[in-house]
Amino acid sequence: MKYVYKFSEGSGSMRELLGGKGANLAEMVNLGLPVPQGFTVTTEACTRYYQDGEFITPDIRDQVMEYLAWLEQDSSKSFGGAGNPLLVSVRSGSRASMPGMMDTILNLGMNDAVVEGMCKLTGNPRFVYDSYRRFIMMFSDVVMDLPRHEFEVIIDKMKEKKNVQLDTELDTDDMKELVALFKDFYQKSKGAGFPQEPREQLMASVEAVFRSWNNNRAIVYRRENDIPSSWGTAVNVQSMVFGNMGDDSGTGVAFSRNPSTGEPKLYGEFLMNAQGEDVVAGIRTPQEIDQLRGIMPEVYDQFTSIVAKLESHYKDMQDMEFTIERGKLYMLQTRNGKRTAQAALQIAIDMVGEGIWSKEDALLKVDPKQLDALLHPTFEPKAIKEAVPAAKGLPASPGAACGRVYFTADAAKEEAKNGPVLLARKETSPEDIEGMIAARGILTARGGMTSHAAVVARGMGTCCVAGCGDCIIHEDGGYLMIGDTRINAGDFMSIDGTTGNVYIGSIPTVEAEITGNFNIFMAWTDEVRTMKVRANADTPQDAAQAIAFGAEGIGLTRTEHMFFEADRIGPMREMILSKGEEERRKALDRLLPMQVKDFEGIFTAMGARPVTIRLLDPPLHEFLPQRAEDIKSLAADMGISEQTLKDRIDSLHEFNPMMGHRGCRLAVSYPEIAEMQARAIIRAAVNVKRATGTDIVPEIMIPLIGDVNEMKFVKGIVQKAAEEELAGFALKYMIGTMIEIPRAALIADEIAKEAEFFSFGTNDLTQMTFGFSRDDAGAFLDDYYNRKIYENDPFARLDQTGVGQLVKTACDLGRKGRPGIKLGICGEHGGDPSSIEFFFGCGLDYVSCSPFRVPIARLAAAQAKIKSKG
Amino acid sequence: MKYVYKFSEGSGSMRELLGGKGANLAEMVNLGLPVPQGFTVTTEACTRYYQDGEFITPDIRDQVMEYLAWLEQDSSKSFGGAGNPLLVSVRSGSRASMPGMMDTILNLGMNDAVVEGMCKLTGNPRFVYDSYRRFIMMFSDVVMDLPRHEFEVIIDKMKEKKNVQLDTELDTDDMKELVALFKDFYQKSKGAGFPQEPREQLMASVEAVFRSWNNNRAIVYRRENDIPSSWGTAVNVQSMVFGNMGDDSGTGVAFSRNPSTGEPKLYGEFLMNAQGEDVVAGIRTPQEIDQLRGIMPEVYDQFTSIVAKLESHYKDMQDMEFTIERGKLYMLQTRNGKRTAQAALQIAIDMVGEGIWSKEDALLKVDPKQLDALLHPTFEPKAIKEAVPAAKGLPASPGAACGRVYFTADAAKEEAKNGPVLLARKETSPEDIEGMIAARGILTARGGMTSHAAVVARGMGTCCVAGCGDCIIHEDGGYLMIGDTRINAGDFMSIDGTTGNVYIGSIPTVEAEITGNFNIFMAWTDEVRTMKVRANADTPQDAAQAIAFGAEGIGLTRTEHMFFEADRIGPMREMILSKGEEERRKALDRLLPMQVKDFEGIFTAMGARPVTIRLLDPPLHEFLPQRAEDIKSLAADMGISEQTLKDRIDSLHEFNPMMGHRGCRLAVSYPEIAEMQARAIIRAAVNVKRATGTDIVPEIMIPLIGDVNEMKFVKGIVQKAAEEELAGFALKYMIGTMIEIPRAALIADEIAKEAEFFSFGTNDLTQMTFGFSRDDAGAFLDDYYNRKIYENDPFARLDQTGVGQLVKTACDLGRKGRPGIKLGICGEHGGDPSSIEFFFGCGLDYVSCSPFRVPIARLAAAQAKIKSKG
Repeated sequence: MKYVYKFSEGSGSMRELLGGKGANLAEMVNLGLPVPQGFTVTTEACTRYYQDGEFITPDIRDQVMEYLAWLEQDSSKSFGGAGNPLLVSVRSGSRASMPGMMDTILNLGMNDAVVEGMCKLTGNPRFVYDSYRRFIMMFSDVVMDLPRHEFEVIIDKMKEKKNVQLDTELDTDDMKELVALFKDFYQKSKGAGFPQEPREQLMASVEAVFRSWNNNRAIVYRRENDIPSSWGTAVNVQSMVFGNMGDDSGTGVAFSRNPSTGEPKLYGEFLMNAQGEDVVAGIRTPQEIDQLRGIMPEVYDQFTSIVAKLESHYKDMQDMEFTIERGKLYMLQTRNGKRTAQAALQIAIDMVGEGIWSKEDALLKVDPKQLDALLHPTFEPKAIKEAVPAAKGLPASPGAACGRVYFTADAAKEEAKNGPVLLARKETSPEDIEGMIAARGILTARGGMTSHAAVVARGMGTCCVAGCGDCIIHEDGGYLMIGDTRINAGDFMSIDGTTGNVYIGSIPTVEAEITGNFNIFMAWTDEVRTMKVRANADTPQDAAQAIAFGAEGIGLTRTEHMFFEADRIGPMREMILSKGEEERRKALDRLLPMQVKDFEGIFTAMGARPVTIRLLDPPLHEFLPQRAEDIKSLAADMGISEQTLKDRIDSLHEFNPMMGHRGCRLAVSYPEIAEMQARAIIRAAVNVKRATGTDIVPEIMIPLIGDVNEMKFVKGIVQKAAEEELAGFALKYMIGTMIEIPRAALIADEIAKEAEFFSFGTNDLTQMTFGFSRDDAGAFLDDYYNRKIYENDPFARLDQTGVGQLVKTACDLGRKGRPGIKLGICGEHGGDPSSIEFFFGCGLDYVSCSPFRVPIARLAAAQAKIKSKG
Repeated sequence: MKYVYKFSEGSGSMRELLGGKGANLAEMVNLGLPVPQGFTVTTEACTRYYQDGEFITPDIRDQVMEYLAWLEQDSSKSFGGAGNPLLVSVRSGSRASMPGMMDTILNLGMNDAVVEGMCKLTGNPRFVYDSYRRFIMMFSDVVMDLPRHEFEVIIDKMKEKKNVQLDTELDTDDMKELVALFKDFYQKSKGAGFPQEPREQLMASVEAVFRSWNNNRAIVYRRENDIPSSWGTAVNVQSMVFGNMGDDSGTGVAFSRNPSTGEPKLYGEFLMNAQGEDVVAGIRTPQEIDQLRGIMPEVYDQFTSIVAKLESHYKDMQDMEFTIERGKLYMLQTRNGKRTAQAALQIAIDMVGEGIWSKEDALLKVDPKQLDALLHPTFEPKAIKEAVPAAKGLPASPGAACGRVYFTADAAKEEAKNGPVLLARKETSPEDIEGMIAARGILTARGGMTSHAAVVARGMGTCCVAGCGDCIIHEDGGYLMIGDTRINAGDFMSIDGTTGNVYIGSIPTVEAEITGNFNIFMAWTDEVRTMKVRANADTPQDAAQAIAFGAEGIGLTRTEHMFFEADRIGPMREMILSKGEEERRKALDRLLPMQVKDFEGIFTAMGARPVTIRLLDPPLHEFLPQRAEDIKSLAADMGISEQTLKDRIDSLHEFNPMMGHRGCRLAVSYPEIAEMQARAIIRAAVNVKRATGTDIVPEIMIPLIGDVNEMKFVKGIVQKAAEEELAGFALKYMIGTMIEIPRAALIADEIAKEAEFFSFGTNDLTQMTFGFSRDDAGAFLDDYYNRKIYENDPFARLDQTGVGQLVKTACDLGRKGRPGIKLGICGEHGGDPSSIEFFFGCGLDYVSCSPFRVPIARLAAAQAKIKSKG
């Protein structure tokens, strides 16, 4: 088995084996570009390393040594030799670019003897000792797990002693002393001297790269970017070239186009007489790449022609590293450049305009998730890079927000007049709505992705972190605790609803901005896409927002939130607490005209687009009052004693409300509720059709079906009410169900005989299939990631193995039971690109997601279509 | 389509079509026995009736009329004719005997004109008017839904007026007046006269029988006896013969063997000059059947020879009805007789002894569920027949109990010295244990089948009704409310843990008694059975009980209840609330020796029988204190403030604990808990093996696995701890998992690669597959039965369509992943006969159930085996 490749043995197509960096180095060598020679240890070696119990077997070590010998020969240098020493850099490089992994180690191969030799060779001992102390520090930190901080303390003491500010002000002797101090510290910490054997340094570094594949940052990054842990990383070993050999040397990074704006113009910076890390370290201010033309015109021309060659070869914007050693240009790396969402669109449109990409190419080049940044405020990239989260909750509604935090809706509303505020509550209730509207972001300690806070926030497009159990919120006391840190009302906090991160203090945000490019690009997605995209929308405002983002219908209107509004919650509560059907019908009669108005609003907003309305779903006790004063006033309204009311509320208590009396089970117990809703839907549709002439197509959706008899029963009630309302008026409506109970998926053929459409409720389906509730899983999912049991949050990305199996089964059985049955999905996965690709594969007719995810879904659906043709 | 059969056209094998009663009447006719002629309307006609929207179509009506004409001709009488009128009885008769259905209607065909004719014919107007008033009352009640009570009021007034006690004391004129009053009442209530057209009476009665198939009592009975609603009922129309035609007439019921004791001797009673209902009405005291020999020796001899013929023909104890009309014997019905559990065993053993049954026949003849009555107290049959349940909860632990109710454990314990008590609590906690031991029965308002009360009660064999939400218990006030009825401490209540029924007042109970017959019979089950039967047992006492009932191993030891004991709950709580691993390990170190002792006790009791021990399963907050004083004292013990403790308890709160941080998820978060338990299991096994030389075979079971990586991770921890404990000592142990999460069933092939055995946790699997929690489903399951959506409680009887599909899938995949993998089931379905038959069909190696259900499971497993050979 071949585990090591020279760059010249590889190619750009060998990404899986050589990693991105290795494949691109090989490709550049093949293109005849000036690349320092080297070799790549393959990703398969990494996989072997883990299979063998985190151990590099002798056969792999032997191959590394063999290629090292070749590199010595090729460069006419000797690794560890004092005469003409070969130094190398060691870098990780996985298939996908992964910033979470091991840092580069430069100058590897140095030891006391080599240092002596180099001093003679270069005549520049300060440079040599500077390089050595850098190497000792990098190696100790990255490979040997010694705290970097300790080395920095040693440097700081030295600078204090010498009374200087910058490292560059330290002289050769200082550097020599630093080397000695570093080695002492190493000896003390490790009980052994700093490794003097370069081959030992090399193998330890290779192993450190392998290990870094499974460090926490890498795992988190993989999870967020859907990268499987089975891929492994490659290791690149490359001859060092030195940009710090004098004024005819230098180093820099450049992009073939502007990565922030997409402007089609070389963009980058460089430093003369410097090594790689100096460019980013900020010790000296780098120069703009244009200025290189004046300094070294030939090198500049050579570089620009290489850039052009690389971009047209890779057909994408390139992110490159280069070094100039004594006037000679070396390319150290190239890769497709990361870019902001704005830049991504600009580049896509330019590339299509330049004839380099087809529209389909362009569509594949933009990451759907990136579009989020165009729709929501985000943190300033630099500021967030330095910020450390203090706690983590559920990413309940995307975007970033920063403001003074308040713990009551009233305070939030009041203080919002003076500047941005965040509202933090144990959990929110309908009474908090004004404070929620006033707040830039909402933080709750309890509640999940479908809690009041989460759903309301997503509907408004307001950033929300929900269920952040690390925050102990004392609403009455007006403060919250994160660990031992106390945050008072009025203190600054920042929250990120895209990641769930919570920060103490202020992090500046960047506002979202939709440009013309966005609309051009999104129109392309629609040209390609065959799967429809709908939105989950509960109000006419949501519906309008959804249409603005390109939704082709509503896949889910939850009717429950309508009942939380001030004028409805009263009759709703009386309905729930009524003693029998008669009393209940009286309360329902008061709700009916309000529901009719709700649906008229939505139908009017949506016009002829299909609208799926779900019958009442949550357990009824969610609507009941909890505060003593609310109970008191409701008891008075109902003319019963507080104790009687409390007893009734108590009797509605459930142990596991998620698995309790909800969904179609409510319609089974209280058919009159489903009847009222069916009436309201049909009456509203008739009214709007009469008023506007538009053909309204309501799709009435019965939730939580698990048995065909349930479906028959509830359908019967809905149908009867609908026909009575229509009284012969011509209006087409459909009755279907959600598939969100595992049993429903298993008997979908039977259910399809009664249901005109299926909509997969993958939130609940995931909960039931995994047997854990989303609201509670936060307590242990991190342990699952840390132990590498799960790689992804199954609520964010559909579990294709288990839940997906049920989805597929239900699609197949559903079509068997009713050929051509309409299939859709309205769970949160409807806005997740990888899940959308899966749903496309299952042949769903549409996906439905929250309005702000509609653009993402449109792009993902287009990509799925394009990929399916490949 | 033929919907009506003469008795002579049918046979005993046509049960499905003609119902049990109809098929047996046909069979008796075929045997040449004296049976009044008649015909049967088939079960298919009933099914048609429902298919046609509860309507009897003309084709069926025509066939009934055709056969009626034949019956007139055959009897030379005329239906509705005054000259020689034909009267008939109408009775329901389904495939299985169903007491919940329509009562018999006698004397149908009477009207004013017929009455006149009969008076002339019999010369006995009192008898005729007595028959007429009976008919009006029966028809009005059963067919026309008029309240029977109103008729009784009219009779009572009449008796008051005449100043007599008994109906028999009323004379002809009184009877005439009653008929007139009855007809008036009918006219007033229905707005029309009592139907005078006999054919109308007949068709209305046929329809009433069909309707009665779906009345509530019938639905409940079907559910409890696994009878599908699709079967429908037949209707038998038979010429009336009269036992009340004088002193040479009579009527009676008899059993070919004693149905209470099984004694092989004719048993029954009769009344001369009486009609059927008089025998049961208790107006006159019936005579014992033997006495008939003295009165009518020829008829008696004829009857005993018919009895012998019928028993040997049906090869089972017969329950017969007969009438003597003017010295001529008529057989009206025969069927296999219902019998007590004691009688069932006696008859089985006698029948085998008599060479009538093989042992296998005998095994099939006893209903496994009946065995329960031998193991637990039951209510006196007569007393319970008259009792009306006041409320219904979950049947958490079988048996019946009656006593004075108390609302605190202390009171129950104290008062138990003076007589039997029931303990009623909102929910029980470990602090209540002494009161629970003292009580005859336990009633809780909250909590499900796996609540503390339920599990502890089942273990002790104490009757328990759990989660009875209709009981509003005021523990402090010392009373409970059922609706508007208040029951004070010290009042009598009765509860039935087999049905979940709760009664106000005292209902006498009968103690359980195990006889030699039981052991003989159970030994036969073991001769036949191939599937093993184990018990769920958490303590050495449970284990001993299980062995006494014939368990061949333990299929489930729940370790959690061990931690509720007084000496453990302290360290357990400290463990749960500890700040980090170190603190947690300290508390675990204190628990370890106690767990070792627990397991030593169980291993010692079980010897070489396999013992499956499940690692800690419930969410940790179940162990935490709730009462203010307990929190206070725990905070003091732990040296932290009450507020800090409350905050920590609060942070462990879960929305849906059933789907929360429990099962193997605990082991993922806190591997040290699984490690401690694995150590304790292995250490105990080693100790017992060393001490006794017996080969102990622990099976370590990891609960709630949903992903193969979870299994790998937790298995790794268990294995490491086990190997360390063994330190080379030779002891075989197995590591397996429960299959209780739908996802686990879907990927069982992968999981089987890591698991040495599967045990199906069908309780949780049912919950997740249906998406409702057992603890909460009580609130709506009754609605599901009433609306005919479900026929069975899926927690009592395995849902073979949905959940069973997952069980089968998991068995198939499991064997694919690991050929010969050991398969068992430890959910409550392991004690349910129909589910056991299903599991046998899946090829499970064993079923495991609570100790008191082991005999049932042994018999059911034997039956499954016998049936599989047929």
